[in-house]
Amino acid sequence: MVNKVAIIGMGLIGGSLGLALQQKKLAEMVIGIPRRPETIDEALNIKAIIKGTLNVAEGVREADLIFICTPISLIIPKLKEIIPHVKKGAIITDVGSTKEQIVAEAEKIVPSGIYFIGGHPMAGKEKSGVAQSEASLFYKKPYVLIKTKKTNGKAFNTLKKIISNIGGNVMEMDAKSHDLAVASISHLPIVVAASLVNAVVDMGDVKEKAKKLASTGFGDTTRIASGDPKLGLDIFRTNAESVLSVLEKFKKEIDIFQKALQEQDEVQIVNKLSDAKKFRDSIYS
Amino acid sequence: MVNKVAIIGMGLIGGSLGLALQQKKLAEMVIGIPRRPETIDEALNIKAIIKGTLNVAEGVREADLIFICTPISLIIPKLKEIIPHVKKGAIITDVGSTKEQIVAEAEKIVPSGIYFIGGHPMAGKEKSGVAQSEASLFYKKPYVLIKTKKTNGKAFNTLKKIISNIGGNVMEMDAKSHDLAVASISHLPIVVAASLVNAVVDMGDVKEKAKKLASTGFGDTTRIASGDPKLGLDIFRTNAESVLSVLEKFKKEIDIFQKALQEQDEVQIVNKLSDAKKFRDSIYS
Repeated sequence: MVNKVAIIGMGLIGGSLGLALQQKKLAEMVIGIPRRPETIDEALNIKAIIKGTLNVAEGVREADLIFICTPISLIIPKLKEIIPHVKKGAIITDVGSTKEQIVAEAEKIVPSGIYFIGGHPMAGKEKSGVAQSEASLFYKKPYVLIKTKKTNGKAFNTLKKIISNIGGNVMEMDAKSHDLAVASISHLPIVVAASLVNAVVDMGDVKEKAKKLASTGFGDTTRIASGDPKLGLDIFRTNAESVLSVLEKFKKEIDIFQKALQEQDEVQIVNKLSDAKKFRDSIYS
Repeated sequence: MVNKVAIIGMGLIGGSLGLALQQKKLAEMVIGIPRRPETIDEALNIKAIIKGTLNVAEGVREADLIFICTPISLIIPKLKEIIPHVKKGAIITDVGSTKEQIVAEAEKIVPSGIYFIGGHPMAGKEKSGVAQSEASLFYKKPYVLIKTKKTNGKAFNTLKKIISNIGGNVMEMDAKSHDLAVASISHLPIVVAASLVNAVVDMGDVKEKAKKLASTGFGDTTRIASGDPKLGLDIFRTNAESVLSVLEKFKKEIDIFQKALQEQDEVQIVNKLSDAKKFRDSIYS
């Protein structure tokens, strides 16, 4: 469907995109542009890419479609770096998990005739790294593409078709709604899980007892508190406003529960537990 | 080690105790006393018990050891019901997940010469019911036994040996420390998970988008919000004070994070995420 795809950043997502694009015969050439030379060999070994280079300018030259798959904090710097070398008509997209700041900045930088479309695949695995790549990583998973007033319709549709072809369930969204939605289901839970763990640390004598008694329930609830703090910081740098907005709603819910506990308002306790169960079961059943 | 064991309440815990006691040859007779007649057949089928009856008085007669494995709200009522029929020297224990109220009330009720020891096995499975029973359910899992000023040392040691023999990792604790510890790692997480889900429900337009994007991260963090609201209510009825005390610490942690987000205090954000990761990894590694 396109001639040449360049992938900047070869981790789990970048590698899986390379595999999926080749498996579905969507690109003649897939070139990988990682940060470290060893990653080129790893990516070539698992056939995630056809060629690799550390030279970004060379890698993106003549590319029809460029995926920026770096950590959030490097997306705009990489975009600035490649723009002078990108051909007219090229589509550039990213896979960052926050979108409002990135898309706004990208649209300021990208010259006319080159098309930036923000993206966010809701796909992942416990382990990261290019060696973990799977062509089926995006299969039936939501893949958000951001539409703005400036979005070029033709470029958007081209990217949308490619994502659908690798199995992604494309969801068109505006950046603000996306950032609020992921704040509620992905970023606020990091704050909450970390605070739950830190509350146990604050418990003095009881801390060690709690640690010994902690089992799968606490393990599940706090799993994302074991994520990389640097990735967390990237998220909280670029999506603080949405997280703070959802945090207000969360604190309101906590206060309602606290009051119900203080007053032993059993009707309210059961209502809140039942409402939560009902909505969660409607997602995961 | 004992002649006759009676188990009141035949769910996952009651059934697994029956299986484990027989497998380890710790009792000559294991009699099950469920609420519904069908459960007797189920328990007999999987050999969790040797005999079953719906008649509590008959079931506990001549028992050396009695496990009360009902929901929390029925533990004290069942204890009152059986006391007139229990022989001198018998040991009575329960498996409720809160202990301070239960142990205090039980010690008021139980006459001298009969020994009550509060217990709490930290063992469970996704599914409940006697059919799920496993002799190995308690293997290497913490099993709390509560020691008070009134606890009879000999009775305590007898029960401790039996629990050790079925594989449980016996932890001696006072009731207050137990209730605070489980409030922090088990009961507060229910409040937090339910409030996270309810915060998404409060999000108006964004709610449906969030629902579509929700994946394994949100699923894990909120898993316990899908528990039975009635079991939750039992917990919050009998352990509200401890939950409220840990909730204060949690709210303090949430406020620190909120301030750090508002001020974009990156050092504080990374510190809080790193502290949480470090402690959680020390539990689950």
